[in-house]
Amino acid sequence: MAKVIRVNMTDLTVTVEPVPEQYAALGGRALTSRVVYDEVPANCHPLGPFNKIVIAPGVLAGTAAPSSGRVSVGGKSPLTGGIKESNAGTPVAQKLGRLQVKMIVVEGQAAAGAYLLKLDKDGAALLPADDLKGKLTREINKDLFARYGKKAGIMTTGVAGDFKMGMAGICFNDTEGRASRYSGRGGLGAVLGSKGLKAMVVDDEGAPGVEIKDKELFKQGQKKVVDAIRSHPVTKPGGALNTYGTAVLVNILNEAGGYPTRNFSAGQFEAASQTGGEAILEAVKERHGGMTGHGCHPGCIIRCSNVYPNPDGSEFTSCIEYESTWALGANCEIANLDIIAKLVDQCNEIGLDTIEAGVTIGVAMDAGVIPFGDGEGAVRLMEEIRQGTPLGRILGNGAWFTGKAYGLTRVPVVKRQGMPAYEPRAVKGIGVTYITSTMGADHTAGYTIAPEILAVGGKADPLSPIGKVELSRAFQAATAYIDATGYCLFIAFPVLDIPSGMEGMVETVNSVLGTTWTTHDVGTLGLETLKLEWQFNKNAGFSKEDDRPPEYMRYEKLPPHNQVFDITDEELDMIWAAFEEK
Amino acid sequence: MAKVIRVNMTDLTVTVEPVPEQYAALGGRALTSRVVYDEVPANCHPLGPFNKIVIAPGVLAGTAAPSSGRVSVGGKSPLTGGIKESNAGTPVAQKLGRLQVKMIVVEGQAAAGAYLLKLDKDGAALLPADDLKGKLTREINKDLFARYGKKAGIMTTGVAGDFKMGMAGICFNDTEGRASRYSGRGGLGAVLGSKGLKAMVVDDEGAPGVEIKDKELFKQGQKKVVDAIRSHPVTKPGGALNTYGTAVLVNILNEAGGYPTRNFSAGQFEAASQTGGEAILEAVKERHGGMTGHGCHPGCIIRCSNVYPNPDGSEFTSCIEYESTWALGANCEIANLDIIAKLVDQCNEIGLDTIEAGVTIGVAMDAGVIPFGDGEGAVRLMEEIRQGTPLGRILGNGAWFTGKAYGLTRVPVVKRQGMPAYEPRAVKGIGVTYITSTMGADHTAGYTIAPEILAVGGKADPLSPIGKVELSRAFQAATAYIDATGYCLFIAFPVLDIPSGMEGMVETVNSVLGTTWTTHDVGTLGLETLKLEWQFNKNAGFSKEDDRPPEYMRYEKLPPHNQVFDITDEELDMIWAAFEEK
Repeated sequence: MAKVIRVNMTDLTVTVEPVPEQYAALGGRALTSRVVYDEVPANCHPLGPFNKIVIAPGVLAGTAAPSSGRVSVGGKSPLTGGIKESNAGTPVAQKLGRLQVKMIVVEGQAAAGAYLLKLDKDGAALLPADDLKGKLTREINKDLFARYGKKAGIMTTGVAGDFKMGMAGICFNDTEGRASRYSGRGGLGAVLGSKGLKAMVVDDEGAPGVEIKDKELFKQGQKKVVDAIRSHPVTKPGGALNTYGTAVLVNILNEAGGYPTRNFSAGQFEAASQTGGEAILEAVKERHGGMTGHGCHPGCIIRCSNVYPNPDGSEFTSCIEYESTWALGANCEIANLDIIAKLVDQCNEIGLDTIEAGVTIGVAMDAGVIPFGDGEGAVRLMEEIRQGTPLGRILGNGAWFTGKAYGLTRVPVVKRQGMPAYEPRAVKGIGVTYITSTMGADHTAGYTIAPEILAVGGKADPLSPIGKVELSRAFQAATAYIDATGYCLFIAFPVLDIPSGMEGMVETVNSVLGTTWTTHDVGTLGLETLKLEWQFNKNAGFSKEDDRPPEYMRYEKLPPHNQVFDITDEELDMIWAAFEEK
Repeated sequence: MAKVIRVNMTDLTVTVEPVPEQYAALGGRALTSRVVYDEVPANCHPLGPFNKIVIAPGVLAGTAAPSSGRVSVGGKSPLTGGIKESNAGTPVAQKLGRLQVKMIVVEGQAAAGAYLLKLDKDGAALLPADDLKGKLTREINKDLFARYGKKAGIMTTGVAGDFKMGMAGICFNDTEGRASRYSGRGGLGAVLGSKGLKAMVVDDEGAPGVEIKDKELFKQGQKKVVDAIRSHPVTKPGGALNTYGTAVLVNILNEAGGYPTRNFSAGQFEAASQTGGEAILEAVKERHGGMTGHGCHPGCIIRCSNVYPNPDGSEFTSCIEYESTWALGANCEIANLDIIAKLVDQCNEIGLDTIEAGVTIGVAMDAGVIPFGDGEGAVRLMEEIRQGTPLGRILGNGAWFTGKAYGLTRVPVVKRQGMPAYEPRAVKGIGVTYITSTMGADHTAGYTIAPEILAVGGKADPLSPIGKVELSRAFQAATAYIDATGYCLFIAFPVLDIPSGMEGMVETVNSVLGTTWTTHDVGTLGLETLKLEWQFNKNAGFSKEDDRPPEYMRYEKLPPHNQVFDITDEELDMIWAAFEEK
């Protein structure tokens, strides 16, 4: 029987409850957003006693569906002040699924101390964990694997969570136990910090496994998804993602003039190629260590992750994603992959969102705290965050906060969340997604890069403002659906281009839930989640004025295309017009 | 002929324009708020090129009306993100009035450098002023008096303005030339900093004086106001304000249990009496130096200001107001007047709002940056602000920002502006004013302390929530009117209790403007200004969720009365319900 685990940090009690009927057909983001909407007062202080953290594996997590090991974490974001869902690919997702844990709701606040939640087939318990505070995530994982065995699934926060910083992520282990997979965005690690929940250990030994209501349908759908992933040039074995990792995009976006450089003041970085997927592959090959084409959880058949080696070939860190190599590279004018890897590793160890960290350092460089291109300086700034110095407190609260500390106006954020690695002035659909997403600036919320740059799911001119509101809305809706399934968002590439892949996605979900959705329901179901998120934000005080680009992007022209962001406020306001009460 | 001076900092040009008809009957806050509403895009970046600063003397400034030397500064606040008007009593107000300068509008941004605006009877000019940057306001005033003569009126910002800090005020000279009178609240000094306007020098030699349309009416009204001020126990010569200064309130509020102590965690300070008006008077007398019963501008007949002496009797600083001795005293558990005077002096020299500075240090103490009661530590924190260190950047951006940097939830702010020296849980009407004012937490926006504590203008139980929304609305409306006149807000004490005083106030205004308002129009006129401010805030993205107390005041009981803030959100929302479009 699927169950809900409710953890009350005020009383230090754990209860196991049946899944309410209205939540039975939900998982992942659809479930976290629904429960946050239902249970968290929208106007509460994100770090106060009334916020909650909801952890929910996707519907298929724990099944044999390919690349379906995602877990969603939801709550009110201390970074944006709005609703947040941030998901990660990790064995933890699958272990929760196999334990039939529909979700974990963490509420209240411990008066003092730090705690660990231990989950296994027999139930759940809160244990003291003061000894984990102040440690690097790598040390925490080492401690907990020693204590609970190498097969444990681990969730933890770093010192950034202890410090309740706005860029504190939530760290999950990868297939080999590295503290490297993050629900990074939106500062939910700070919310766990405010509650005193330092870590969670999941042991799925003897777990019943995911209940599949229609096994035949599951097999049928699974095959369709596998076939689609294995045949699409982006996701197939030996394809773009598998060979080069997500950083395959570096040269592509740079060519397109949409690769944000030096704190979003240019769209091309002269040294981009030294930091891209091809360069990572070359370093891994040359040093005869590390890995590319690696999965973040068992059963992934896309396998886009990598492990970056030291010069001597020994393992250094994982993973250098596109977003990370950009945020800590071009955005800071840093062209050295070893420095970028060091910065990624620091983020992993301290417990930081790499995107927010890189955008923040870019802002700090623009403000003159250190010069652009100063890699060693960037490493020192990370150390300031780790120590919680005053400068670390500024940086640790993100790009918007850092911009405000230094009185800067060139601050690339929406809803106080730093923009990812696509320039809105050069790729306007993704700009609409950044600006209108309920999540703040977030590329994964509606990845229009697919048609605008990659010719996947159609084709659209990145520089044109025409039709981008509709395009972004469709992508945001489909994404909200995928974020509920447990599937990695990268299955969007094959399922957008291959109709049977789309069918397989819906069939596998139906097979578990007993639902009878068709591919036509995907957008509708996604919009239901988006509407709840939008309403939460509205109840929290958000208005249309929060769906706006940074002012400077309206008047500062971005080289090389010399474009401003020219989709009007009125057009932007159309995106959720249907959500407004009549 | 009255005129508008428009200063374009982008082009470095100054133009003199006639007063538009629709602004003819406005002055002070009524004018600054109207022009900000008309000319500043509500959603602009406060430190960007589209914000403006509007400087307008009150209608009567420069006339012989008693205690009427107030000047309003308006703009979009970098602290609150909403509209801001902050006024000061200073000879500058009177000089502008006598020069028939209706207002100065500062717009655009200098590409580099700092500038000084020189005004005299012949016109206005922008002059380079790079040499003034980085200096203490005391040094700036000394320089400018040396350059322009002792009779000059000076407006400047301190280094806080150069750093574009959220607590940067705008400094005006007092009667003796001290850099001590502030449009302190809301960070408008940072807006001047962002524009590159470092200072203004006003020379009124040969000025035509304020044009009075009905001199007989003026004399009649003036006499009524003078008589009222001179007969009311609060404002009369030798009365409470004149004898003890505003800090006469310290013991009164402490007795009432509404004196915020240790970052708004208690309502009584055990050492309050050592920091009150009586103690200040004693110190001044004992040291045979300094002054009490001193005016901030010529023609003030209330004379509530003071000059605090060094132990050897020489002059130290001016002025130790009630708000300042509280913010930097009880709120930080500091009971030593010499330390408080030092902190006030640092605020004056650096260019800080003393209220925001004290609330911020209280928050920093609560976060453990330094311990409560650590006066020397507080002096060091001020020095960090002066130097613009990372810690100084945190503190310099105010209480909300500091609370966020350290992940604190006990942060006494509304609309990100620190609360003044009255506890909303113990004096609930002023709580309504803090929460619902267009300005953020501001006691001067609707001083219900008069009936709740002082039995002026009626009598209301401070602990009762009943009727406080209506009470606050009436006070906010009357205040918005007074803030337009140039009169010091303290004339509210006599005019609330003495009907002829109220008549005199309106008659003097009518005599200058040629209007025919009656005392019944006071509230209506005030509401017109409030509605514009409210609409600006709404256009800037504010909603009812911004009219809320800090969450913790809803559940943390305040000793000694053990009360929470118990006026409901629904009741709060009634205050501006009439402004909503139907």
